[in-house]
Amino acid sequence: MNAARAFAPATIANLGPGFDMLGVAVQGLGDQVTATRRERAGVVIEAISGDGGRLPRDPQRNTAAIAAAETLRLLGVAQGVALRIDKGLPLGSGLGSSAASAAAAIHAVTLLFGAEPPKEALLPAGLAAEAAVSGWHADNVAPALLGGAVLVRRNAPLDIVRLPTPETLTFVLVTPDFELPTRDARAVLPARIPLGDHVANAANVGALVAALYGGDMALLGRALADSIVEPARAPLIPGFAQVQAAARAAGAWGCSISGAGPTLFAVADAARCAEVGTAMQRAFRDHGRVPSKVHIVAVDAVGARAV
Amino acid sequence: MNAARAFAPATIANLGPGFDMLGVAVQGLGDQVTATRRERAGVVIEAISGDGGRLPRDPQRNTAAIAAAETLRLLGVAQGVALRIDKGLPLGSGLGSSAASAAAAIHAVTLLFGAEPPKEALLPAGLAAEAAVSGWHADNVAPALLGGAVLVRRNAPLDIVRLPTPETLTFVLVTPDFELPTRDARAVLPARIPLGDHVANAANVGALVAALYGGDMALLGRALADSIVEPARAPLIPGFAQVQAAARAAGAWGCSISGAGPTLFAVADAARCAEVGTAMQRAFRDHGRVPSKVHIVAVDAVGARAV
Repeated sequence: MNAARAFAPATIANLGPGFDMLGVAVQGLGDQVTATRRERAGVVIEAISGDGGRLPRDPQRNTAAIAAAETLRLLGVAQGVALRIDKGLPLGSGLGSSAASAAAAIHAVTLLFGAEPPKEALLPAGLAAEAAVSGWHADNVAPALLGGAVLVRRNAPLDIVRLPTPETLTFVLVTPDFELPTRDARAVLPARIPLGDHVANAANVGALVAALYGGDMALLGRALADSIVEPARAPLIPGFAQVQAAARAAGAWGCSISGAGPTLFAVADAARCAEVGTAMQRAFRDHGRVPSKVHIVAVDAVGARAV
Repeated sequence: MNAARAFAPATIANLGPGFDMLGVAVQGLGDQVTATRRERAGVVIEAISGDGGRLPRDPQRNTAAIAAAETLRLLGVAQGVALRIDKGLPLGSGLGSSAASAAAAIHAVTLLFGAEPPKEALLPAGLAAEAAVSGWHADNVAPALLGGAVLVRRNAPLDIVRLPTPETLTFVLVTPDFELPTRDARAVLPARIPLGDHVANAANVGALVAALYGGDMALLGRALADSIVEPARAPLIPGFAQVQAAARAAGAWGCSISGAGPTLFAVADAARCAEVGTAMQRAFRDHGRVPSKVHIVAVDAVGARAV
């Protein structure tokens, strides 16, 4: 095989109270990466489409290239690869764009060299890529690579827990038409927090995990409450409070920020999702003065895959 | 019925990273409360045994009496009760002594008046009792009343999640021979914590819940790590670091402080528990210069019950 192509899905990270630790892969949206063998060692970027020319072509600064280089190293492959990246995800939208490219690159390189280690063994390559561009967190790249919902118990050494997801779990994603760079969203975070806020958020993380195991959607909605990160980031998203309120008023079990934002996600009964999406979109328009796109998506249980 | 008697078990609260939110009831140890009808309204304490005369006889300051009064109110009973409290649990040991008395009182009063509301409906009576003596937390009294493992998602309004426990789950409790009043153990807690410590602990709470659902004892052991409360309280327990290390060296999956301490608990394979207990006891003697008692206990799935 001289070339291999892989797709990896969008992810909702920072799931409710799960800042830097809880993420889930969702269907339908994602990035593709094609890896081609190269005689010389190292990784080069051949082409990128769908980014409006804005992603770095420098392999030291591009997440797909960093992930590919780490994957080659972990696989013990001396050859190099050339990458072609086809972005399906918008940048800076809170849908795990950099992680999707990294996960697709990891999988394309793995396919190219016929290697079949468990995906989890290559996850550190994804974490290295994320660390280079948006901080030391694996809650996007772990579900992008592995699929489903993932709890990152610890980054170093990586210790992840794959969580079950109820079959009926459906997300409404509403992406307003502006970018929120992850570094800006990180800059507003408090360095220290009251112990009581920790207790509230950690209890919600526990409840969220229980809700996923038990398939208790109402509990899942209550457990999405976040008293640490959401209040800090809400001011960066015009209309946030009204959009969240509109989601709940339309019957969503819960609503919070996807990743670093500005995409908001709601969890709702499948039959209500269209209505919830419309209500959120309208609230973004009326209160945030911003147009938005709605996607209704199920969980992607597969993660990175050949295409 | 003119009198009713109930038992409620000891509990391990603050389970690992689960400060103020995660607790589990354990077999074998506990308190008994006998409630007798009284014509006059209100609650009086008739007798207390097993406390060395140290618990308050004033019904306004005694957890069993406060819980009984709240239970009468919640049941809409105009009559009063006289309580006899038989303490099986040592005071200030970190085994949920006040919660066991409160839970037993709630159940005795319920039995006395032939009421059969779900136990959960009376849990606020237990929380009120705890709040009066040791702070606003339900992670002892919820499992003492309900049995099993309980996650307290929120105190007000109370929102609890009952968690499954693996059949093989066995705890080694090692109680050194000194008291650590809960108020002293609370006084050393930090008011604010670094965001990174929150992420680490909350991820461990999520992992602990996943481990209980999945019956993954090794994960449960790793998830007992606590970077917030344990480091603050460890200096109050002479020999703590060595006892914890001894538990792990003897094969325990994990070891942490039970409740506010000074009891330490370890989780280990049932076949190893005796060895783990002996190792912990020896470390308390050699490094903490304190004798201790070992109890090897399974989960109490029942909670408060008639005797």
